[in-house]
Amino acid sequence: MQVVILCGGSGTRLWPISRTLYPKQFVKLFQDESLFQKTVTRNAGLASSFSVVINQDQYFMGLDQLDDLKLNLKSTFILEPIGRNTAPAIAMAALACNPEEILLVVPSDHLIEKQAAYEATVNKARELAQNDRLVTFGIKPGYAETGYGYIEASGLEVKSFKEKPDAATAEAYVKAGNYFWNSGMFCFKAKVFLAELKKYAPDVYEESLKTFNNARRDQAIRLQMEDMKSIRSESIDYAVMEKSQLVNVVPADIGWSDLGSFDSLYEALPKDQEGNTLSENTIHLGSKNNLVISHNRLISTIDVEDLMIVDTSDALVIAKKGSTQKVKDLVGLVKKQNVEMTNVHTTAHRPWGSYTILEENPGYKVKQITVRPGAKLSLQYHHHRSEHWIVVSGIATVTNGDKTFDLKQNESTYIPKEAKHRLFNNQKEDLVLIEAQVGGYLGEDDIVRLQDDYKRN
Amino acid sequence: MQVVILCGGSGTRLWPISRTLYPKQFVKLFQDESLFQKTVTRNAGLASSFSVVINQDQYFMGLDQLDDLKLNLKSTFILEPIGRNTAPAIAMAALACNPEEILLVVPSDHLIEKQAAYEATVNKARELAQNDRLVTFGIKPGYAETGYGYIEASGLEVKSFKEKPDAATAEAYVKAGNYFWNSGMFCFKAKVFLAELKKYAPDVYEESLKTFNNARRDQAIRLQMEDMKSIRSESIDYAVMEKSQLVNVVPADIGWSDLGSFDSLYEALPKDQEGNTLSENTIHLGSKNNLVISHNRLISTIDVEDLMIVDTSDALVIAKKGSTQKVKDLVGLVKKQNVEMTNVHTTAHRPWGSYTILEENPGYKVKQITVRPGAKLSLQYHHHRSEHWIVVSGIATVTNGDKTFDLKQNESTYIPKEAKHRLFNNQKEDLVLIEAQVGGYLGEDDIVRLQDDYKRN
Repeated sequence: MQVVILCGGSGTRLWPISRTLYPKQFVKLFQDESLFQKTVTRNAGLASSFSVVINQDQYFMGLDQLDDLKLNLKSTFILEPIGRNTAPAIAMAALACNPEEILLVVPSDHLIEKQAAYEATVNKARELAQNDRLVTFGIKPGYAETGYGYIEASGLEVKSFKEKPDAATAEAYVKAGNYFWNSGMFCFKAKVFLAELKKYAPDVYEESLKTFNNARRDQAIRLQMEDMKSIRSESIDYAVMEKSQLVNVVPADIGWSDLGSFDSLYEALPKDQEGNTLSENTIHLGSKNNLVISHNRLISTIDVEDLMIVDTSDALVIAKKGSTQKVKDLVGLVKKQNVEMTNVHTTAHRPWGSYTILEENPGYKVKQITVRPGAKLSLQYHHHRSEHWIVVSGIATVTNGDKTFDLKQNESTYIPKEAKHRLFNNQKEDLVLIEAQVGGYLGEDDIVRLQDDYKRN
Repeated sequence: MQVVILCGGSGTRLWPISRTLYPKQFVKLFQDESLFQKTVTRNAGLASSFSVVINQDQYFMGLDQLDDLKLNLKSTFILEPIGRNTAPAIAMAALACNPEEILLVVPSDHLIEKQAAYEATVNKARELAQNDRLVTFGIKPGYAETGYGYIEASGLEVKSFKEKPDAATAEAYVKAGNYFWNSGMFCFKAKVFLAELKKYAPDVYEESLKTFNNARRDQAIRLQMEDMKSIRSESIDYAVMEKSQLVNVVPADIGWSDLGSFDSLYEALPKDQEGNTLSENTIHLGSKNNLVISHNRLISTIDVEDLMIVDTSDALVIAKKGSTQKVKDLVGLVKKQNVEMTNVHTTAHRPWGSYTILEENPGYKVKQITVRPGAKLSLQYHHHRSEHWIVVSGIATVTNGDKTFDLKQNESTYIPKEAKHRLFNNQKEDLVLIEAQVGGYLGEDDIVRLQDDYKRN
């Protein structure tokens, strides 16, 4: 069996801790593990190989987080330049493997708390998939949620798929007992899925096939922008599951949460006796039932209840418990003012490591740059800015103009405008440097890449 | 008449925006003006000269804020190395002026919203003071506050001073109509106050006189630590007002607030239609009646009410409206963990300008340093750290070892451990530089001052 991890996700519902370029599945929400990592770990014992369908901008983040698990899994990354919903994404994964292979398709950003129940449910689904069935996982509803679609079941058969209900209808569904939340997890043979896709959404199938065949291949399968644009955006539910006659539903009581809001994150996190989530660097005086996600600031509360407090270095959100679905509206408003704040954190992840903007003002910008052992930034130059580099930890192998030399802790170099330069950490420990940029224009797009290990030029 | 501005104040009740070294009266709470500046402006038309009794650590902050008003006032600064409450502080101001002078004594950290009523009340007090009376200002109580002392009046006569009452007693006081809040404002001739102090608290008078005579004098009157220690700490109320037979009270309906908590700050600040304080960089979705004090982060709220949200670069406080008197308890807890966080902001004010800590980690620290035009840091060296300076705005006149040279924007210099160095802004505009410190110990106390314009060596 192969596990297909779907890594789309726009990063708006848990903003500001998630951002477009740092979506929810990669945020380390639990004991320094991300939901993506938890998804991999959860399935590591169930499958022989993994494929990860992921936006190309997050490729190195996904790869790094996978490597950090040190599980030595066989994995294939399929890189999307733009998202086209789940039907094309799953089609790519199905096309990339043996047609007889059973695929277990899972979102990368859900939480499942009952591992044994999960494994038992997967095994049941797998048996059905072995008999050429398309299996969907129906989550036993814990309450009358109006934000999910429901599946009406009769034993293992699906009677119907239901859109998001109103409150009364949701109540009735829960009372009836044979309605399940549509979880977005599936199990089927690659060839069965592809055949049904071809039958019920032939254009999606054809364009996906063309796109797959046209992909560039190196360590990853790189789908091309022009091809992706030609595919109709469609979910697997609309394209196949709601139409196919081969569908089964497996009821799943597995401690599932989609962590689709801070309210559900609050439910999932460990809490103290007063119902406040456990977090370092927090002082509560007389406060109860609060979520606190703290960055590196000290957060104190006095006599407050039922607040979701989410702090990052550039944005703070304080929402009433039960209202956190409005975060999406908030992100819409923020985007109008400052689109960068919805895209990236002040700390940005790069294939070679990360940087944090320490200060930004007209005429200059100060960054702290961390380069992973063995990693190399592109050979580059800038039209509008000079850079000063000061090594504060580790050793940098620096190319500056025509010279390449080592820069040790407490040493510095100056890179004039237009000078070719490169930063390389040829050591076994992280390299940390302070960069002061000076110039009239300091946008990240003033960069001419002459050579790049990560094919960004 | 001379105005005596009392600038004591510990900076705990509005923490984290106020800190021990940046107390409430110097925080720019209103349209970029501090309460200290508002106090000066309020009294500028009433008096011919000012004296400011201030902790010596805040001398340059007070001087700078006074200069920034460009009022060209005649002023005397009296510098206390430690506070000894109001009786000795006022005694020093009285000793420093002509004995016949009428003193108007005012705290530096109160808000008065009705200027015309204030001036009329002061004039009434002044007439009484002219006739050798000790006048206290009694604030007409707006509600049954239990946190203040009260003055029971009979016409202009004081019948008694009352300690902070319980709620029922406070209600009775307000109903009676002849009880007033004790505001901490006074008016009297210098010689009358000193005579009464000598009569009712002779030890305080004698030790204050000795201390005053022993002070070092340059632009300021610098009281000496050993002398100050010998003075008993005492308030003017206990030492004189509650005992003297010469006391009058002038009722004052002047829009007074002591801004002693975020609750009272909320009342004083301008608000939008939903009752949220006006502040830049804030988005409210369905939220009402909130105080938001924002630093440079975007603050968003969703469906929350009656919250006092106070954000600074290193600490965030969220308190329920009505509970902000507990901030004092909070500061006690914070102090146990991190005393620096109660003392200073990440931005620290210095006589020559200010610095902001951008990043601090074992082995290195990054600061942004701003030097005022004409200002000069001390000639100094460090035992444990090297420094890299990069000028990002303005021109620095740098002494580095034996050389002195100009460093322009986009130029840098390296100062090794033990090397004498100095920074001087010999220009008409602010100088801004980025300093990266590297070393095993980076405390502010690793500084050997060889020469200093501000007498700190």
